[in-house]
Amino acid sequence: MSLLSIRKLAVFGVGLIGGSFAAALKQAGAVSHVVGVGRSRSNLTRAAELGLIDEIAEDAGAAVADADLVLVAVPVRQTERVLAEIAPYLSPSCAVTDGGSTKQSVVEAARRTLGARLPQFVPAHPIAGAERSGAQAASAQLYRDRLAVLTPLAETGAQFLAVVEAAWRECGARLVTMSPQRHDQVFAAVSHLPHALAFALVHAIGSRPDADELLSFAGAGFRDFTRIAGSSPEMWRDICLMNRDALLSELELYQEVLAQLAADVRKGDGAALESLFAGARAARERWLGAAKES
Amino acid sequence: MSLLSIRKLAVFGVGLIGGSFAAALKQAGAVSHVVGVGRSRSNLTRAAELGLIDEIAEDAGAAVADADLVLVAVPVRQTERVLAEIAPYLSPSCAVTDGGSTKQSVVEAARRTLGARLPQFVPAHPIAGAERSGAQAASAQLYRDRLAVLTPLAETGAQFLAVVEAAWRECGARLVTMSPQRHDQVFAAVSHLPHALAFALVHAIGSRPDADELLSFAGAGFRDFTRIAGSSPEMWRDICLMNRDALLSELELYQEVLAQLAADVRKGDGAALESLFAGARAARERWLGAAKES
Repeated sequence: MSLLSIRKLAVFGVGLIGGSFAAALKQAGAVSHVVGVGRSRSNLTRAAELGLIDEIAEDAGAAVADADLVLVAVPVRQTERVLAEIAPYLSPSCAVTDGGSTKQSVVEAARRTLGARLPQFVPAHPIAGAERSGAQAASAQLYRDRLAVLTPLAETGAQFLAVVEAAWRECGARLVTMSPQRHDQVFAAVSHLPHALAFALVHAIGSRPDADELLSFAGAGFRDFTRIAGSSPEMWRDICLMNRDALLSELELYQEVLAQLAADVRKGDGAALESLFAGARAARERWLGAAKES
Repeated sequence: MSLLSIRKLAVFGVGLIGGSFAAALKQAGAVSHVVGVGRSRSNLTRAAELGLIDEIAEDAGAAVADADLVLVAVPVRQTERVLAEIAPYLSPSCAVTDGGSTKQSVVEAARRTLGARLPQFVPAHPIAGAERSGAQAASAQLYRDRLAVLTPLAETGAQFLAVVEAAWRECGARLVTMSPQRHDQVFAAVSHLPHALAFALVHAIGSRPDADELLSFAGAGFRDFTRIAGSSPEMWRDICLMNRDALLSELELYQEVLAQLAADVRKGDGAALESLFAGARAARERWLGAAKES
């Protein structure tokens, strides 16, 4: 049985992220009752059928009344609206967390909306994306041994931090704490930039008159490189908008590297190209080695 | 038993490409005797132990004497040297093919070196790359159901084309014919550009002081995106140099797409971003659907 004992959990957005959080806490015996809120009635019905939630709430007030813990797992641009809706109804003892892929925008939204409830909010980003979505994609195993980044504020209360940490741990996640700003820099580099590059590549090839012929020669390398271009356009639009500055500085840096690479190709500078390729391969191998050990 | 009957096959470079060609033709019963040539004695010894080749030739002359078929499977920048070495010893009935990833450079090399033997050469590119190399990576199954692109010249003799086609078919490959120029354009787009982009991304992140911390947050998406950055730096240096013009024009086009994407992010143009992402995802899904059917 879990050390954590949540009588009522309210989940806003019962998709992959929210549904998996509920499923994992239920499986761990850490929560007694889960209320789901969302815009798609059919998705909520499916979530109830799957046992992810015990009850469908008709509005934000009913959902958070008496809740001990709230998870906001909606597309990141809708987080502010949800926080504004729940703020008047949150009890002073209820902890709030989220699952958004950008954190500065969420923190700013919380500062604008939560008022006296701000210390109860612990922003989180579980690193468990997938190209699936909706309640039917949820799994109690989704967060097992995956990272969850917490970005608490100076104002965050210790007791709320403790509850949110315990909840993500019960889901099986390994916790890391960093500032919202650092979070957004890190994920702009290792996640948002690669997604933008993959979408851009498929666009660059797929929008030509001879796209079908070109793609008929694309192999396994192309498939893997572009796998992340199968992700939700809406979600990635929002991430690009919500993490604009960090993504722009990553794009600029990458454009400089690409310009240098093009210059080396143009000059026929084989030594420079081999050095860049060999350095990249070595860095990737070090990373894979380190990932294996951790 | 195979319809093709090659008494003697000479393979220059008994690595993944050359070793797999020999292994597949042996398994098909299409070849009686295979002679291997290469710069690494230990690799040739390994190839003989593995049964890929029956004999190690000491020089190009001995290797091609009485050969019915020659495969040149060396890094693409060394193709010209090998063709120059074998040209004086080729019998007038011996067909020659290669396995290089670029084709215009190989055709130019053949025109400079083969003289009266030019009609015997049928340039080929089997689409079966892998991040493994050397004789120990060779497999009789490597080409099974994979594409092999042939780029015959106006001068190519019908009987030599027939032998080379039959040989790649016996390896299990599906054949496609196109011009060397079109080949290089197509593979610049769907293979050389993605490799350059993946190497550039790992370099852009891996060369920073905080690379280790950044990479500790890289997930499955990053791993798949950069898998092709695990490929041989020497091989990709050569491909970039040998397919310079087509790769440069692909890089320029991609840089334009990236500049537009950055401008959309800067302006906060969500509609433009979503349209680009959705179009890319749809193009990728069409491609995956078409690939499944073929």
